[in-house]
Parts: sequence; C-alpha cells; structure tokens
Amino acid sequence: MLNKLRLLTPGPTPLPERVRLVLAQDMIHHRKAAFKDAMHEVQGKLRQLFGTDQPVLPLAASGTGAMTAAAHGLFAPGEKVLVAEAGKFGQRWAEITTTRGLETVRLEFPWGQAVEPSAVAAALDADPAIKGVFIQLSETSTGVLHPVEEVARITRDRDVLLVVDGISAVGLSPCPMDAWGLDCLLTGSQKGLMLPPGLALLALSERGWRKAEQTASNCFYFNLPKERANVLKGQTLFTSPINLLLGLNASLDILLEKGLEAVYAKQWALTMLSRTGLAALGLELFAPSHFAWGITSVRLPEGVDGVEVLRIAQEEHGVCMAGGQDHLKGRIVRLGHMGWVDWSDVLAGLYALEQSLHRCGGYSGARDYLEQAMAAYRLALAGTAGQPLPDGRIRS
Amino acid sequence: MLNKLRLLTPGPTPLPERVRLVLAQDMIHHRKAAFKDAMHEVQGKLRQLFGTDQPVLPLAASGTGAMTAAAHGLFAPGEKVLVAEAGKFGQRWAEITTTRGLETVRLEFPWGQAVEPSAVAAALDADPAIKGVFIQLSETSTGVLHPVEEVARITRDRDVLLVVDGISAVGLSPCPMDAWGLDCLLTGSQKGLMLPPGLALLALSERGWRKAEQTASNCFYFNLPKERANVLKGQTLFTSPINLLLGLNASLDILLEKGLEAVYAKQWALTMLSRTGLAALGLELFAPSHFAWGITSVRLPEGVDGVEVLRIAQEEHGVCMAGGQDHLKGRIVRLGHMGWVDWSDVLAGLYALEQSLHRCGGYSGARDYLEQAMAAYRLALAGTAGQPLPDGRIRS
Repeated sequence: MLNKLRLLTPGPTPLPERVRLVLAQDMIHHRKAAFKDAMHEVQGKLRQLFGTDQPVLPLAASGTGAMTAAAHGLFAPGEKVLVAEAGKFGQRWAEITTTRGLETVRLEFPWGQAVEPSAVAAALDADPAIKGVFIQLSETSTGVLHPVEEVARITRDRDVLLVVDGISAVGLSPCPMDAWGLDCLLTGSQKGLMLPPGLALLALSERGWRKAEQTASNCFYFNLPKERANVLKGQTLFTSPINLLLGLNASLDILLEKGLEAVYAKQWALTMLSRTGLAALGLELFAPSHFAWGITSVRLPEGVDGVEVLRIAQEEHGVCMAGGQDHLKGRIVRLGHMGWVDWSDVLAGLYALEQSLHRCGGYSGARDYLEQAMAAYRLALAGTAGQPLPDGRIRS
Repeated sequence: MLNKLRLLTPGPTPLPERVRLVLAQDMIHHRKAAFKDAMHEVQGKLRQLFGTDQPVLPLAASGTGAMTAAAHGLFAPGEKVLVAEAGKFGQRWAEITTTRGLETVRLEFPWGQAVEPSAVAAALDADPAIKGVFIQLSETSTGVLHPVEEVARITRDRDVLLVVDGISAVGLSPCPMDAWGLDCLLTGSQKGLMLPPGLALLALSERGWRKAEQTASNCFYFNLPKERANVLKGQTLFTSPINLLLGLNASLDILLEKGLEAVYAKQWALTMLSRTGLAALGLELFAPSHFAWGITSVRLPEGVDGVEVLRIAQEEHGVCMAGGQDHLKGRIVRLGHMGWVDWSDVLAGLYALEQSLHRCGGYSGARDYLEQAMAAYRLALAGTAGQPLPDGRIRS
C-alpha cells in the first residue's frame, strides 16, 4: 500500500498493460488460421528486431532452452568449440557444450571484464579444429557487453560459427545479426521483450542453417530444421506457447512503433542515468568500459552486506534489484533498467539503493546524485538520439 | 458477433476468467519470497492432483518437452525399452526414445484400440533386457484411454519402469500415481489444467528417482535431479515460467475446491453426453470400449470430407473442433470436452457437428439427439457422483 513493487532486475521486467491484456485473452487454437496470421506478423517483426532475413524460431522454453537447442542443433558430439566466457552465463555455455559431448576449449576472462577479440583470434589460429565460438552479447551476471561485432569480424571469414546468447541484449542494444555476421542469435522473452519468461527465440545465419541441416540433434524437443519448416507455415513444431506468442506480437508493436533506434536511444540514456547516479554515490562501476544497456552493476563498499541492502530496498522502498551470483553474492548489486521501465523507475532504484546503503554502513555520495543522474539522462537522450554507439563506450 | 468462439479441441481449452486475470498480472521475481511461497502452495496441490508423495517438477516446455525430459532423465543410450503404442503420441514416444539412443521395441496396436496389458506382459517375459515401458494414459490422437493401471500391475513387480504420458488425462480422469505404481507421470498445462500451453509437469516414483540419479542426461535443459533440488526450495532450475505457474496456482484451486472426485464425475458425465449424442447421430464411435474422459472421437461416414465439416462448424457456428491426424486426417472428428467447458458447450459442439455433417452429405441421426445426450449426462452425474469407474468402461 505504501510502496508499489518496482522490478529493477535483469529480468523478469515489468510488463506493459497492453501486453498484459493480451496475455489474459482466452485461448485460440494454434493450428487454425487466426493464430497462423498472427505468427506471420510476428515473423516480420522479429526479423526486424534480429536484423536478419532468416526465420526467427520461437521455442517453448526459457533462454537456457534456446542455448541448449543451439548446441544440439549446430554441433555433434566430438566437435571442438571455444567458449569465450567472463561470468556465470559464459560458464553455462561451457556446461551446455560439454553436456552435449563437444570438446570444449574455455577462454576465460575475469568477471566484470569483456572478452578480448584478439585472444579469440589467437585461440582460433592456434587450433584450426575449433569449429564454433560461443559467447554472450550481454553477460547478465556482470553487466558487461562483450564486443561481439569485433569477434564476428574474426569468425565470419573462417570456417567457424559464432553463437551468441543475446538474452539480456536483444531489444536493448543494437545487434544486427546479418550485418555483423552472427551465425546464431538467441534471446528470451522476459528481458527487452517485456513478456513473462517461458518463450525463447533463435535465428541462424545461412551457413548456420547449412551446418544445422547436417547435424542430428539427439534431443527430440530441440530440432531446428523442423522448427524452421513449421515457422514458414506460421506454426511451431510442437504445441505453441499461445498467449506468450500473441503477447509478443503486441510487445513488438511497442518496440517498433517509433523504430528500434528510439528504443536503443532510450536504453542508452537509462544506462547513462544509472551509471552517473551510481558513480555520484561513490560506488565503483563493476563493468568499467564495456557495459550492457539494460543492467548496471556496482561493487559494494567493503563491509557492506549486499543481501541486507537488497532486503531493505525491497521491504522498505518497494524496489526489487538483483544481487551478485556465485562468488559475487553479497558483493555487487545489479540494477536492471530493461523492459517496461522509464527514468522515474531508475531514479527510484537509485534512491532506494542510497537509502539502503546508508543503513548498512557508510559511503560518501554526492548530495545531488539524483540531479546528476537526470542531467546525464537528458544529455544522453539529446546527444545520441538516432545513433547510439554500438560498442557501449561513452561518447567522448 | 453472431457466434462466440467455442474451443472444443483436445487442447488448448477455454480458460476460466479467474485464471486469465492471474495471467495478466504484472511480473514478480522468481527468486524472491512471494514467488517461493506460491510455489510451495502449488507443490501441495500438484501432489494431490498426481496422487503422489513425490515432488512434481514444473518445466518451461510443452508436453513434448516433458516427454523428452523423461527419456533423457531415466535411460541412457543403449538401454532397451518398450513403447506400447496405438496412435500418433505413442509413435512420438518411439521417436523420442530412438532419438535418445535407446534400443526401442515397438508394440503396436491399431489406432482406435487400446494397448493390451497381456501383450505387454508377454513382451517383457520374452525379453528381460527391457528396462522401461512407455505409454499414454489418454492417446489424444484417437481418444483412447489405455489401461495403464493394469499395465502398472505388470511393471511394478519387475525391474521395469513405467513412464506415462498423461497429457490429455491428468485432471480429467483418475490417475493416482502412487496407488497405481507409475514410475513417471507427466502432463501439459493446456488440457485438464485450464492454462495456456507452455508449462509441463513431471513426477517420478521413488524407484524412478533412484534410476534418474544414476542417469546422466546429455541435454543440459532437462536435468531431473537438479530440478527436484530446486522444487524443494520453491524454485525451478532455470528462469521460471512465472505467469503460468501463478495461473496454475489458481487453476488448481478451482480443480480442488470440490475435490478431484467431483472433477472426474463432471468429465465422466460430459463424456456420456458426448458419446450418447454422437451415437444418436448415427456416427461410429472411434474408441469403442476404452475411451478418454476429455475427448470423443467419431468416424465420419464414407464420402464425407472431414476438413470441410470442421470448416463449416467453425465458420458458421463458431465451434472449433479437431480433425484426425496423419492417415486419419479428414476421416475422424475429435470433439474435445476438457478444460473450462460445460454441458452447454458440448451441446453446441453436437449441434454444430450435426449441421455441418448435414451440409456435407448424408447421415441418419435421431431427431432428439440433443435430448438423448442430456439425458445421458444427467444419468451419469447422478449415477457416478463421487465414484466414476477408473477404467473408462460404462457402468453396466
């Protein structure tokens, strides 16, 4: 009653009412004309979002399901792949590829840092048997935006497929799949797409499809060529997650109404708002140079209990943020600014964090951190409208 | 405007408003207390529904995902299993097990007939290497209810696991997992559970769990022991399909409000309504003796185009029914009476079918087929209230 719940996590995100009302509609049948018509509409919009001429497959699964589908669909047991990792979801790629029986080379970077493209090139030069590179665009556990466009410049001229987890990036920062030369791009519904979790999306490049056609999945539920054949008919291979797909049609309308550039400009500006405010609070930004546009991570001062900070923020201010995962638990806070979230929500996040930190012992922040944050937001909106910087660096 | 859409298919089904309003709620976070509390509530209700003391795992997947998870979770490549099949979904079991690399013995019965338990016993006697039997409870493609309780009497005393696809049966007819001795029971959200598709549920017996703990899944997305560890904490292994799970909490309340016996009595009475009406229309019931309680299949008269019958029923009367699959396409109609459907909806289905058949050329039905159907419904409700017959036969 006193506070409204504000979800400022890196997914799930708040949902637009327009989407929620679609989710509440009574069922229609997934093998009938009305559904197929909607699916053809969704396809056109998804191809814009992914920046591809190829079909975008909807899967009834979480994002990890799509990651699993990519590994099973593109590589057979015994094939050699490289996982470029710097966080929990990078580790997940390696778990998925080894479970699939792929010979997995792990190229690890410290959590909070970005993958170095030159190291990827060196690893591929050193071992020509490597036929695939797995990477995140946005590493959700750290808030880092990996330089995927640069990595694609390395893989696209070689016989190496680049498989990109775009789960906390698609719909938040630019990721034009065909222009960059990605071979697989996938995402989940509960981040930039402003939907509940439970739907994943996956697209392959032309050469990705050639490889997929030669690869037998040993997991019946994930069969990319058969999914593609169905998508072309406005269908899915198995029973469709009907209300999420109809909700997706509505959320894509919201994203495309003013064009994707406007969406990215907003996300860039929210990122500037968040980073500026957190820096003004004297907090150390966890991803110093390459940072995601939907989530900002900060390191907590020594001696501050991050779990307690999050508890106070939620219970006393209504703001739900995420903490660190694994060895970062209690050490960082991840402030999400994705989905149906605007400047006022992020301001609420900054204030809740400041108040909770204060209660948990010491920091030296500026008195006007909220005003500084809003000034950065306005400047970013004005300065980058129409052309945010794709590599995530601050315009000098 | 003239007609309301009535979904009388074997899934998806119409949804109660109470559930739809939950589906429309804004997101909460799946790693926080409010969600965990709801998940513990759901667990208790699911165990009642499944008739088991074991945890019931929610999976973000369609029913086929749960079938895949069962095959990957319980058996390793090279192990020998029997698939007892008599329809499209029986065939699917065999596709799933062979894709998993299991040595698969197929025990086939004609579509429309039930699996014969004595044949299962003979097959197991003949080959002691068989370690699992896969079967449907309700074979959705034909409307047959296989005698799973009798098959379980055969498997439970042997070193053979019985894996049951209950997708179009759970919540519609009795299936007390522990009492019958099933080792795996699974279902999907879009049938008896009155939810959109996209959520699957799966439970294992105690000995099923022992086997699962020794079996390494090679598909990262499906890991039954890790899912169980999460369920016990009110969590799921990967991002939860939040709104479907909260919707499930509401739909289980509806099912359990007057007790499962009342739900089954209703389904039995709707089945009697449907079968009596269709027989009075002079149509041949496709599942003569063992029949499901959520779907009734009828063979169409020679020369009648079933696709056209369904088109007329939908376009001119607003009633959406299902046709036959594969070689039965155009030859049978499947009238669903599951989910948020009552007697009046099924009457509408009978009338739409009668009118559409009439337009497509000849049949000789009784003038009072609707009244006969309703008389059977009333009799069934009175006669079976509280104790429907579990084997699907009509009380003599």
